Amino acid sequence: MWRAKIFVTLREGVLDPQGQAVRSGLMSQGFKAVSDVRIGKYMEVTVEATSIDEVSAMVRAMCERLLANPVMEDYHFILEEVQ
Amino acid sequence: MWRAKIFVTLREGVLDPQGQAVRSGLMSQGFKAVSDVRIGKYMEVTVEATSIDEVSAMVRAMCERLLANPVMEDYHFILEEVQ
Repeated sequence: MWRAKIFVTLREGVLDPQGQAVRSGLMSQGFKAVSDVRIGKYMEVTVEATSIDEVSAMVRAMCERLLANPVMEDYHFILEEVQ
Repeated sequence: MWRAKIFVTLREGVLDPQGQAVRSGLMSQGFKAVSDVRIGKYMEVTVEATSIDEVSAMVRAMCERLLANPVMEDYHFILEEVQ
């Protein structure tokens, strides 16, 4: 069994209003040293597969088809074998 | 300048309806090998600080006070020095 830790982030240059809101929240809490905040998604997907190549291809397909929006988001992932 | 990569995840045992929805979406797309999905948050916060100890204490305080809900979420972060 494998666990994929998937990170989906907005592409460089894409406006991030949620990040700006969090930044102003942090500023108003006194964290004046914060210069930028970008918000992404983090997902842990557990899959049954026999090889790392199989799970890697499967997770890539999941990201392309459902988990990320390829127009404005990038993704990367880490694979771990679990019991 | 430092970049903190912050991961906020639901605690073990806390129900994750968003994860269940994504899992059933993946299943209906043909990814039958998916046994579990957990959804978390991923944030990149850029801060000005002079030492790693200073930035570490600052990011911990941000997580405790604003970015994570300590009742039902765990967090961890990675720090990188950036130009």
